[in-house]
Amino acid sequence: MASDPRACMMRGAMADQNPLLSDRDVDFQLYEVGDARELCRLPAFAEHSGETFDLFLRSARSLARGLLFAAYRPMDAEPPRFVDGRIEVHPAMRAIWAQMAELGVLGATRPYAVGGQQLPRTVAIMAEAYLMAANLGAYGYAGLTSGAAHLIEAFGDAWLKDQFMRRMYAGEWTGTMALTEPQAGSSLGDITTRATLAEDGSYRVTGHKIFISAGDHDLTENVVHMTLARLDGAPPGVKGISLVAVPRRRFAADGVTLEDNDVSTAGMIHKIGWKGLPSLVINFGERGDCRGWLVGEPHQGLSYMFQMMNEARIMVGVNGIATASVAYHEAVRYARERRQGRPPGARNPQAPQVPIVAHADVRRMLLRQKAIVEGGLALLVQVARYSDLAEHAPEPAVRQRNQRLLDLLTPVAKSFPAERGFESNALALQVHGGYGYSSEYLPEAWLRDQKLNSIHEGTTGIHGLDLLGRRVFADGAFVALADEFKAAIADARTVALPVVWIEQFELAIATIATLTVELARRGQAGEAEFMVRHSADYLDLFSTLCIAWQWLRQATVAARALQAANTDDRNFYEGKLCAAQYWFATELPRIDHLVRLCQEGEDSYARMQPDWF
Amino acid sequence: MASDPRACMMRGAMADQNPLLSDRDVDFQLYEVGDARELCRLPAFAEHSGETFDLFLRSARSLARGLLFAAYRPMDAEPPRFVDGRIEVHPAMRAIWAQMAELGVLGATRPYAVGGQQLPRTVAIMAEAYLMAANLGAYGYAGLTSGAAHLIEAFGDAWLKDQFMRRMYAGEWTGTMALTEPQAGSSLGDITTRATLAEDGSYRVTGHKIFISAGDHDLTENVVHMTLARLDGAPPGVKGISLVAVPRRRFAADGVTLEDNDVSTAGMIHKIGWKGLPSLVINFGERGDCRGWLVGEPHQGLSYMFQMMNEARIMVGVNGIATASVAYHEAVRYARERRQGRPPGARNPQAPQVPIVAHADVRRMLLRQKAIVEGGLALLVQVARYSDLAEHAPEPAVRQRNQRLLDLLTPVAKSFPAERGFESNALALQVHGGYGYSSEYLPEAWLRDQKLNSIHEGTTGIHGLDLLGRRVFADGAFVALADEFKAAIADARTVALPVVWIEQFELAIATIATLTVELARRGQAGEAEFMVRHSADYLDLFSTLCIAWQWLRQATVAARALQAANTDDRNFYEGKLCAAQYWFATELPRIDHLVRLCQEGEDSYARMQPDWF
Repeated sequence: MASDPRACMMRGAMADQNPLLSDRDVDFQLYEVGDARELCRLPAFAEHSGETFDLFLRSARSLARGLLFAAYRPMDAEPPRFVDGRIEVHPAMRAIWAQMAELGVLGATRPYAVGGQQLPRTVAIMAEAYLMAANLGAYGYAGLTSGAAHLIEAFGDAWLKDQFMRRMYAGEWTGTMALTEPQAGSSLGDITTRATLAEDGSYRVTGHKIFISAGDHDLTENVVHMTLARLDGAPPGVKGISLVAVPRRRFAADGVTLEDNDVSTAGMIHKIGWKGLPSLVINFGERGDCRGWLVGEPHQGLSYMFQMMNEARIMVGVNGIATASVAYHEAVRYARERRQGRPPGARNPQAPQVPIVAHADVRRMLLRQKAIVEGGLALLVQVARYSDLAEHAPEPAVRQRNQRLLDLLTPVAKSFPAERGFESNALALQVHGGYGYSSEYLPEAWLRDQKLNSIHEGTTGIHGLDLLGRRVFADGAFVALADEFKAAIADARTVALPVVWIEQFELAIATIATLTVELARRGQAGEAEFMVRHSADYLDLFSTLCIAWQWLRQATVAARALQAANTDDRNFYEGKLCAAQYWFATELPRIDHLVRLCQEGEDSYARMQPDWF
Repeated sequence: MASDPRACMMRGAMADQNPLLSDRDVDFQLYEVGDARELCRLPAFAEHSGETFDLFLRSARSLARGLLFAAYRPMDAEPPRFVDGRIEVHPAMRAIWAQMAELGVLGATRPYAVGGQQLPRTVAIMAEAYLMAANLGAYGYAGLTSGAAHLIEAFGDAWLKDQFMRRMYAGEWTGTMALTEPQAGSSLGDITTRATLAEDGSYRVTGHKIFISAGDHDLTENVVHMTLARLDGAPPGVKGISLVAVPRRRFAADGVTLEDNDVSTAGMIHKIGWKGLPSLVINFGERGDCRGWLVGEPHQGLSYMFQMMNEARIMVGVNGIATASVAYHEAVRYARERRQGRPPGARNPQAPQVPIVAHADVRRMLLRQKAIVEGGLALLVQVARYSDLAEHAPEPAVRQRNQRLLDLLTPVAKSFPAERGFESNALALQVHGGYGYSSEYLPEAWLRDQKLNSIHEGTTGIHGLDLLGRRVFADGAFVALADEFKAAIADARTVALPVVWIEQFELAIATIATLTVELARRGQAGEAEFMVRHSADYLDLFSTLCIAWQWLRQATVAARALQAANTDDRNFYEGKLCAAQYWFATELPRIDHLVRLCQEGEDSYARMQPDWF
């Protein structure tokens, strides 16, 4: 460390060496632990190969490490501006948007027929992870547009596909998800935005939405809001919600020119992270002239949204891991470079100071981050594979089984990265010491970015209730997952791993299975409140088990490959085995206590009254 | 919740109802669990009474809830500016500084002889907690000045006391702690700032310091930097560090006029929180004309600093709890007001939505915050009492015993509020949902403020090493603490508390005692690395035990008072019992696993190599 303090403060800017994700680990997850190339046997992916996968990944990496990462700090420092009713985004976004569209990010997993690249999700999420790690806000425009277009692709009519979807996948227009209203955050059944059928077959839309990401900008000529609204006469609650596509500008009578569609921006929310992406209050129909087009059938809006929700939630999981990953790599680099102090017991105060990675407690913080980041990434790859098979396997039974696994694991894939990722990001800041507390260094920005992930697309609390109130009891789901666990155990037994890991893992599975059956019994006996009381703890223990599973799989491959490996690979595999050990020793044993809380239905917060706080 | 989204966004500004801390709880901690009035029996506090305590507390509360809290958001939004080499702070600080000085915050605990109020620390920390909860950055100027003046009071000569200290306690000048240098963050032995004796008996100081809070401002005419420096010929390392008082401006030859002392501000660090308080890079002697005055004996600087360090560390603990407290109260209020969703199993989608405090998982998040905030506050009151007795008890044996307890608990009192406080602040944000993610609401600001507390005055990692490497083995310390635990147990047995809490607590004490003896044996056998390997886990388990002790004490008082209480008090005591239950059920059992990690010396991060990350 140079002794000029100003030089020190500049080191935070030298982030160009940050790999965002470890390429070696991405290869390991896709091709050594996973079998991504095998997906090419599916008819949908027949035109792909390891080469086309890698080509896409290399392009995404390069775009991420170049344009996106370079713009991250400026975009964080200069958020969009709300000027004369319109949103102006950071100028760097223009080139980024063009390049993301050019790369084909918008339709990466979509069929050739709609202009997509028909790539497996397994591969696509890795490319997206690089882009997110580089610049979460910048990627947001693409993720939202892709999701919005996908809704039309899945449920819209030919006109909507031709007029809206095509332009969105091509990057000519962007899209949003317009769900939330001020009085209806997590409670979508309470939305009040209205859509009234007009003579021309379109709908007149009135209402206001809040937290609409990328709801306006100056990147493209139009924005399509995939809007939840009530048609006239709709039943109350979630059964009366329809999906309406509401463009900011609509085609004029000539069918070519775009004219104003009475969609206005009422305000911008000052988010604490994802600053490149505006979050807006949007009003529809202030002048009574806002037109929307129904997507699919009336009153099916929430069901359509939920069919896309798994996808969106997995994307949140990728956000979480990507954001933890870039901070982890920054912390590793800092810990190797920053010299501070001497080993315990060193007696010579004039001996050179050591890099802080030499201190065991710093390595503890780094290894914990590694265990979270790489364990979480492994789970996401696993879940993406289930998604690919659920959608594209030729055999109905295979599709069904994979859909069950996907459904069961989605709350974990969404929440684990959000919750543990936040902890991981806080550790990356802590490794940087006082420098980490300044905005000259990046860890604080990633910590801010990360915090959204436990809130959007369903809070962690809601995912806990979803898992324990519904998904874990879905027909055949738990059994299918247990079979996956067994396969991992069988493979682990073929290599030299500590037997105690396998025993511990088997015991944890059995314990959690017993607990789950017992809670189901409680639920059936009318004790629903008891059943879900510790849903947060259940989500935690279930997630901890799933990540142990992923560390067992990674450790198995690492142990098998270690003997024949060269030096770099040996280092890589040893690191994997250390992180697996950390998870089995430090995290997995925590579940016993959590199981007890669920089993006993500890009732402190259940009986706590509002007036007692 | 109003349905106009702009109205919704304004609710964040309605924070005037936030009590900062619960007055009821402050009274409970001081006078029901604690016996603050008994301190008046000590000669030092003979002129005080419950009335003078309450008068001071009321004044501090009023200042905190008025001027300080009103300025919090503006000061967070408009940090100090660095203009033409000088720092300009927020204009609101001028009145705040005057009022804090007027209130006597600067010398609250100091003797009448130096212009202080000679209040017990037990009472002073409560007053300070209100001020910190209202505006951590604003209070910072006072805390630093007080600490700096106290160093001169304790170790300086008559001239320094008359010229510097007197003006500092009076609020005419401010003070700083100038320890850190770029190449010597946590490793103070590596500082290089020099002080060379001049013919006039003062020293010529050269060097640069970083992270100097309140190192410059436009509030008062002068700033005194309590600076660690090396005298010529000083031994290397920590044994060659002296304490030098270096004012920004010195008296000219006339002894009255202030002239420039060659202390310059080289830069401002953009901290992510505590934004009202500038953090600076300070250069001494760029023109070779910076004079400093030695405080105490040569080469004793670090020892002087460490004598003040307990005080500073407890203040960090109070920062942590205060910052968690204000956010907790904001979250409780929000959860009672914000309507969202319906109880599980509710079938009518048109029934009114319920306040989110009706959802068990929201109460879980609130109760966890309560357990952390009030458990931490109780520990701080306890530790402050030890401090009062260590300093002012007439009997040497009593002083010694209390000093031991204070020394042993200081790492816990500093780190628990920082670590769990951060978690608590994150939960307060989470309770606010999407609104919590915006800077229109305050929880995100408090989360940023809190993060510093795990870094400054020794990182959490360093406190773990300090506790397990030294303090827990100090002569008689653990035994004294065990006696305190026993007294709490004896008292708890006299009321109707669940027997299982007491059994659990006793078992935890025994387990930790056994572990500690075993680790001491390892250390004596030359296995120092093994001994301290899990110092972070040891700090965690030790803290968890100490907070259980504080919850047992609080529950005992609550259970005793419950029967005869009126409605408000019943609610209060029931809340205490619920929070105690939460801690015993949810937190205390975690220690078994942590004890095993320490005992077995789990070695994943110990053997992890830098190249394996």
